[in-house]
Amino acid sequence: MQHTAGERPVRRQPGDLSTVDALAVEEPLEIRVDGERLVVTMRTPGHDEQLAAGFCWTEGVVDHPDQIESVRTCGTARFGNVVDVTLSEDARDSRAARVREARRDWVISSSCGLCGTTSIERLKKQSQMFDSNWQLPAEFPGRLPEQMRREQEAFARTGGLHAAAWFDSTGELKLLYEDVGRHNALDKLAGSRLLSGQIEEQCGVLLVSGRVSFELVQKAARARLPFLAALGAPTSIAVDAAQELGMTLVGFLKSDGRYNIYADPGRIGIDAAGRPGLGRSPPVDAR
Amino acid sequence: MQHTAGERPVRRQPGDLSTVDALAVEEPLEIRVDGERLVVTMRTPGHDEQLAAGFCWTEGVVDHPDQIESVRTCGTARFGNVVDVTLSEDARDSRAARVREARRDWVISSSCGLCGTTSIERLKKQSQMFDSNWQLPAEFPGRLPEQMRREQEAFARTGGLHAAAWFDSTGELKLLYEDVGRHNALDKLAGSRLLSGQIEEQCGVLLVSGRVSFELVQKAARARLPFLAALGAPTSIAVDAAQELGMTLVGFLKSDGRYNIYADPGRIGIDAAGRPGLGRSPPVDAR
Repeated sequence: MQHTAGERPVRRQPGDLSTVDALAVEEPLEIRVDGERLVVTMRTPGHDEQLAAGFCWTEGVVDHPDQIESVRTCGTARFGNVVDVTLSEDARDSRAARVREARRDWVISSSCGLCGTTSIERLKKQSQMFDSNWQLPAEFPGRLPEQMRREQEAFARTGGLHAAAWFDSTGELKLLYEDVGRHNALDKLAGSRLLSGQIEEQCGVLLVSGRVSFELVQKAARARLPFLAALGAPTSIAVDAAQELGMTLVGFLKSDGRYNIYADPGRIGIDAAGRPGLGRSPPVDAR
Repeated sequence: MQHTAGERPVRRQPGDLSTVDALAVEEPLEIRVDGERLVVTMRTPGHDEQLAAGFCWTEGVVDHPDQIESVRTCGTARFGNVVDVTLSEDARDSRAARVREARRDWVISSSCGLCGTTSIERLKKQSQMFDSNWQLPAEFPGRLPEQMRREQEAFARTGGLHAAAWFDSTGELKLLYEDVGRHNALDKLAGSRLLSGQIEEQCGVLLVSGRVSFELVQKAARARLPFLAALGAPTSIAVDAAQELGMTLVGFLKSDGRYNIYADPGRIGIDAAGRPGLGRSPPVDAR
């Protein structure tokens, strides 16, 4: 994690104290698929191979771990570090179409998020793989922010990094990644699950440090994570997409245990005090 | 501003109170140049024409107000609302090259930020137009956050919107735009300046509500705004780029008047108490 923070001179006001500040590092990474450039992304260095694999997965270039043969860092290019994702033989045949499809999404997108109309239909395929036969106690989410914050090393030093964390059904923090881009933090986590073959384990919570845009719901769905919680606010379309996909979406999750359920409360069970269960009834009203 | 917030049902925990929440609206906007699709961006509705003009400007499709003949909302398409930017006759001749150049940047970029190496060189052309013969008092920046927050209507309702504000040299808030995307908020502000022919007025402060990535420095430079202040942290490369471009970069700006200067303190004068001037000496050390 030594490259997540970089020092720069700073002058603090008032008083004009000259000192040095640790800042979140943001640098370009080129992601290649079978040697061909897919994208150059601005990211915080570290876990580049997870990022590359995760990006390919959550942007639809691959659908399954079997489609990746290897991921390796292959030196530097003009734009910075380079990671090459080698596809398996059968995925290679459809590579051109997959890359074209993913690229088409970017062209009709700008900096953040893709277009909802086309994407939701495609995403539904992913969300059909959501496992809905499990529940976590209602007090479960409230325990997570404190744990995540304790592990956010780089954030503690720089105040400038987003985080994505995965907690299993016992409440144990299993994965945590930090990045200047919230989408990158999620991609690193998704890539880590993909590369370690853990994508079938859905029962648990994906917690993100910031707000929830449509793009994050989309990436979480592709990464088969049906319970997304955030410290911040969701957008309107993020709620609509989660609802549509059958994803549980929690926002404004506070360390004192308060939170809001915006979509699919079915994975949240009754609380310890036995108060009226959340369960599947009454559902959140569809708009 | 009626479309900045949308209501969605929510269940508050603990207690399972069913109620309704106002959320930041995020919807697709298609930006066309001379009738041809340039991009579809996820944005908060409102000030779409400013956004379209600003996007064209900060992404290098146009360099000057004269190159835009008109900007108009032209109904809806499959992907949502559509705004068409019509170029002036002389800009039209070079349109294909300009759009290709802008698009090339996006292909080598992902969700946030463009590649530093190529962009900095091109940006330097813009920053040569920076006016450096002015200073603001050292206590000036500290007065701005409170003013901005007071005007952030949609943020107050949703907790989910970024803001970009422009303060003139008297400290008066002249422009403020909100959006789910911080780059969009800046583009709306840039577009507003472009369309009202105010781009020569540089003496003042651009204040953004979040953190500062390389992309924001890049957009501020293209919009000829040489003093960028942020409530949050800058990234390492944002500081390097600002330094390189001769842009004053302030971060962690607090309502109590504290802030950090990361690049080019030359536009910040001595404070009211007459403490050692900041001025142009001593400069922040180059790395």
